[in-house]
Amino acid sequence: MRIKLTLSYDGTCFCGWQKQKNGVSVQGTVEDAVFSLTGERVSVVGSGRTDAGVHAKGQVAHFDTNANIPPEKFYKALNTLLPSGVKALSSEKAAENFNANRSAKRKTYEYSLYLSDVEQPLKERYATRVFGDIDTEKMQKAAEILVGEHDFKAFSATGGSVKTTVRTIYGIEVKKSGEDIKIKVCGNGFLYNMVRIISGALVKIGKGEMPVENLTRALETGERKLLAETLPAKGLCLSAVEY
Amino acid sequence: MRIKLTLSYDGTCFCGWQKQKNGVSVQGTVEDAVFSLTGERVSVVGSGRTDAGVHAKGQVAHFDTNANIPPEKFYKALNTLLPSGVKALSSEKAAENFNANRSAKRKTYEYSLYLSDVEQPLKERYATRVFGDIDTEKMQKAAEILVGEHDFKAFSATGGSVKTTVRTIYGIEVKKSGEDIKIKVCGNGFLYNMVRIISGALVKIGKGEMPVENLTRALETGERKLLAETLPAKGLCLSAVEY
Repeated sequence: MRIKLTLSYDGTCFCGWQKQKNGVSVQGTVEDAVFSLTGERVSVVGSGRTDAGVHAKGQVAHFDTNANIPPEKFYKALNTLLPSGVKALSSEKAAENFNANRSAKRKTYEYSLYLSDVEQPLKERYATRVFGDIDTEKMQKAAEILVGEHDFKAFSATGGSVKTTVRTIYGIEVKKSGEDIKIKVCGNGFLYNMVRIISGALVKIGKGEMPVENLTRALETGERKLLAETLPAKGLCLSAVEY
Repeated sequence: MRIKLTLSYDGTCFCGWQKQKNGVSVQGTVEDAVFSLTGERVSVVGSGRTDAGVHAKGQVAHFDTNANIPPEKFYKALNTLLPSGVKALSSEKAAENFNANRSAKRKTYEYSLYLSDVEQPLKERYATRVFGDIDTEKMQKAAEILVGEHDFKAFSATGGSVKTTVRTIYGIEVKKSGEDIKIKVCGNGFLYNMVRIISGALVKIGKGEMPVENLTRALETGERKLLAETLPAKGLCLSAVEY
């Protein structure tokens, strides 16, 4: 039986999604919990890897099991075995050919920022600080340039090994609430560091430190250096995966 | 020269405000930073103690210094020496007779809750989970009973050594936004664990597990056992102190 699991985790606690020799990964932690529960050494397949420090409130994964546990109760049993840094939010029986990675249709990431001249201990864990003021309307307008199907080569870190750098962004929303800013990006898939690079570029544009045209030129030329630095992992959260 | 300092800290990182032999306190950490900066061993006086695990985004403290640093720049210099768990948000020259503790006129605390049947790793650090649904309008109505000058003896943990258990609550606001609930309590001062006991009682009332009348009876009789458990420290945050 194939189980579809929705997970939330605090990326601070892990070396990332993927199992590694040194470091506690989300994947390894969930696999260990499944083993403790069922006695089965399963492979837990995620919708995609998240880097060290990246959070999730809606990561989706699947695994196969012969355990005699009702699928919709699996997550509660797992939660008694999972550490506080990662918990399962729901579980259900999935079709035999469901694949958390390959069947994913849309993913939504959120990048969280806060405006402050001082580092704020209560915000630092889940957001990145921006000095001074920022024009979020300008950011929203600039973001529209990226919506649609484009070659996002310039918006990816080297080191990825993908067949194509063409992706479709369905929408980007820049929302400001007091000193908190969220950049929500929804697409059919993302290249390595893509949301963190997009967010970094939008921040520079919002601060008037980068011409909006750089986005267009980056899409055309694929030149990473037209854009700003990759923002830190801690501000990023995988919020939802749709199938 | 007397300096008034506004501080924010993540209570998770400390054994509370007050210096202790074993454990890292906020007070001790700030005093160490002042020492590193000025070479002076000062006493940093807070508006009040916060318990282990309680957060602050507007704790106020004072100390005296002969250092030749502009008062309004003191906080920036301190921040270079403070660890990431506590930062100074501002500093200013205070009157000679200003006392962060005794001059305080109003304090505002916020208690954060979230409604969820599952523990959520991204909320657990700064909020307390409530199972099932809750009637926040009922909570708001019940809270009005506590507004005004009352003997809050029933709303305090034993162990405090205060002259009087009479306090004035200026207002209580219960706000719900999606699955997040905030209870904001403003008063002229609070007894030991008072906000955590008030919040615990309001939660029980909102869940229909305690009659509203218990609040009135607790005020009249001073009986702690009429109320619910003290909620965990991690949901509490000292948001502001006014002078």
